[in-house]
Amino acid sequence: MVKIELMSHPPRNSHDVLLRVRYAETDKMGVVYHSNFFVWMEIGRVELMRSLGFDYKQMELEDDCHLPVVDARCRYKSPAYYDEEIVVRTELRNLRDSLIHFGYNILRQRDGVVLAEAETTHIVVNAKMEKRALPERYRTAFSAIKRTR
Amino acid sequence: MVKIELMSHPPRNSHDVLLRVRYAETDKMGVVYHSNFFVWMEIGRVELMRSLGFDYKQMELEDDCHLPVVDARCRYKSPAYYDEEIVVRTELRNLRDSLIHFGYNILRQRDGVVLAEAETTHIVVNAKMEKRALPERYRTAFSAIKRTR
Amino acid sequence: MVKIELMSHPPRNSHDVLLRVRYAETDKMGVVYHSNFFVWMEIGRVELMRSLGFDYKQMELEDDCHLPVVDARCRYKSPAYYDEEIVVRTELRNLRDSLIHFGYNILRQRDGVVLAEAETTHIVVNAKMEKRALPERYRTAFSAIKRTR
Amino acid sequence: MVKIELMSHPPRNSHDVLLRVRYAETDKMGVVYHSNFFVWMEIGRVELMRSLGFDYKQMELEDDCHLPVVDARCRYKSPAYYDEEIVVRTELRNLRDSLIHFGYNILRQRDGVVLAEAETTHIVVNAKMEKRALPERYRTAFSAIKRTR
Repeated sequence: MVKIELMSHPPRNSHDVLLRVRYAETDKMGVVYHSNFFVWMEIGRVELMRSLGFDYKQMELEDDCHLPVVDARCRYKSPAYYDEEIVVRTELRNLRDSLIHFGYNILRQRDGVVLAEAETTHIVVNAKMEKRALPERYRTAFSAIKRTR
Repeated sequence: MVKIELMSHPPRNSHDVLLRVRYAETDKMGVVYHSNFFVWMEIGRVELMRSLGFDYKQMELEDDCHLPVVDARCRYKSPAYYDEEIVVRTELRNLRDSLIHFGYNILRQRDGVVLAEAETTHIVVNAKMEKRALPERYRTAFSAIKRTR
Repeated sequence: MVKIELMSHPPRNSHDVLLRVRYAETDKMGVVYHSNFFVWMEIGRVELMRSLGFDYKQMELEDDCHLPVVDARCRYKSPAYYDEEIVVRTELRNLRDSLIHFGYNILRQRDGVVLAEAETTHIVVNAKMEKRALPERYRTAFSAIKRTR
Repeated sequence: MVKIELMSHPPRNSHDVLLRVRYAETDKMGVVYHSNFFVWMEIGRVELMRSLGFDYKQMELEDDCHLPVVDARCRYKSPAYYDEEIVVRTELRNLRDSLIHFGYNILRQRDGVVLAEAETTHIVVNAKMEKRALPERYRTAFSAIKRTR
């Protein structure tokens, strides 16, 4: 029985998820290829949402509400290596009508070293890629995080 | 003006496409990570179809006809390295009611060394993943390849 | 606190690992793109090794022992969807001088439906890609699995 | 005989490369998954370098000179779809001792619509990830681009 624990904690309005670097994610320099950090961030924000009681899959299916990325930035501080355990710490930075802004710290689990700092901005759209308002129940859930955490 | 030439070729019923190894496709062993060969094969069969006068995108959009992989196999002979030019030589091996079988030779362009031999089997389905017959015009186009090439 | 449990069990000489489908792994058909199953298998065999008390990272670093794939095959039975939890059940099928053979069952965790059956064959090489024997301690660990599980 | 033409032109100090969206690059929303744009940018800057007469592979092998990304940002304007032809227009924005800054416009080839604007900053390091100066001949080649294009 092996367990991977996805920690949820300290930094008030953030959520932690733990993942392990895959061989496929490395490149010939021997480190994680940089674009994979953006894949990890997606996992981070989806798990943040799950921690708030809803899942992104249902948001897409039931509410025709999608959150494509309109702006993404990552500052790489230190390389990530194969098989290392990585913490993606995600926080909700801002929420407006049809815009959601997340911030990320990507850490090496073993010693807490920050590997990258990043942020993504998302627009709320329907399946036709038309802008729409975030349904009320998600807005409420997200607001809770801003107050209580 | 740089040109990448996609060769179309010798082996009668096959089609060649040329691509260049991306940094993102390599892994920490310094070679192309094996799962990427399957991505290359997809490019190979799509370009084979294009050489027959139709494109897979339209097949999906206009005819609700999709070709998911049901069986895929690859025998790796020699590693592919970063920035090398790779030829994906694709041939139609068999075509039955709702099954299509492709074969592939993946070669290093520089010296023609075979890096991998592979094959994929596809089932013809609609968007709901229900089996359906291949539309007649695609069947005709594919049959031509078997006769004339 | 969220936990993902990686189960280890029943089928005698196999090991289970649990993972969740990433958005990046899906394609425009709405299902997991087929080449990603090979990435999952790699996770499966690495975790099988870890369950035997050694890790592949150290095998590469300390023993200059690498296990590139020389043959890979996957039969796809049913599609995998975004956010589903997937079990990769890996077993050691055969072990000879410089060849290791793994078998895989990829299951949907929720209902145990088999999504794919697969197998990979690996050759033991050094960093220069020259064939070499598997170090004794790994051979011993692998042999144990064949006897006791 | 199929040709993909990689255009080199207009915007003085930029270089164009043409690529076609792969099925593997799409996601369940039916568009290109955002992290793939960063893979395309890498192709853009490598081809920019090739147009200056040197290749990045040799830079790594012969000069132990690597250019990992330390900062990457992309603003997404419009989605990219399967099978579309995409132009990655790369320009050298700045060059200092051990820092190189590239800018990108990612366009849909058919109508020139801008899909994304982006930029990456790179540090010059050796294989041990230690900062080093960019070898003189690369500096010269890059300087030429800033003057003449």
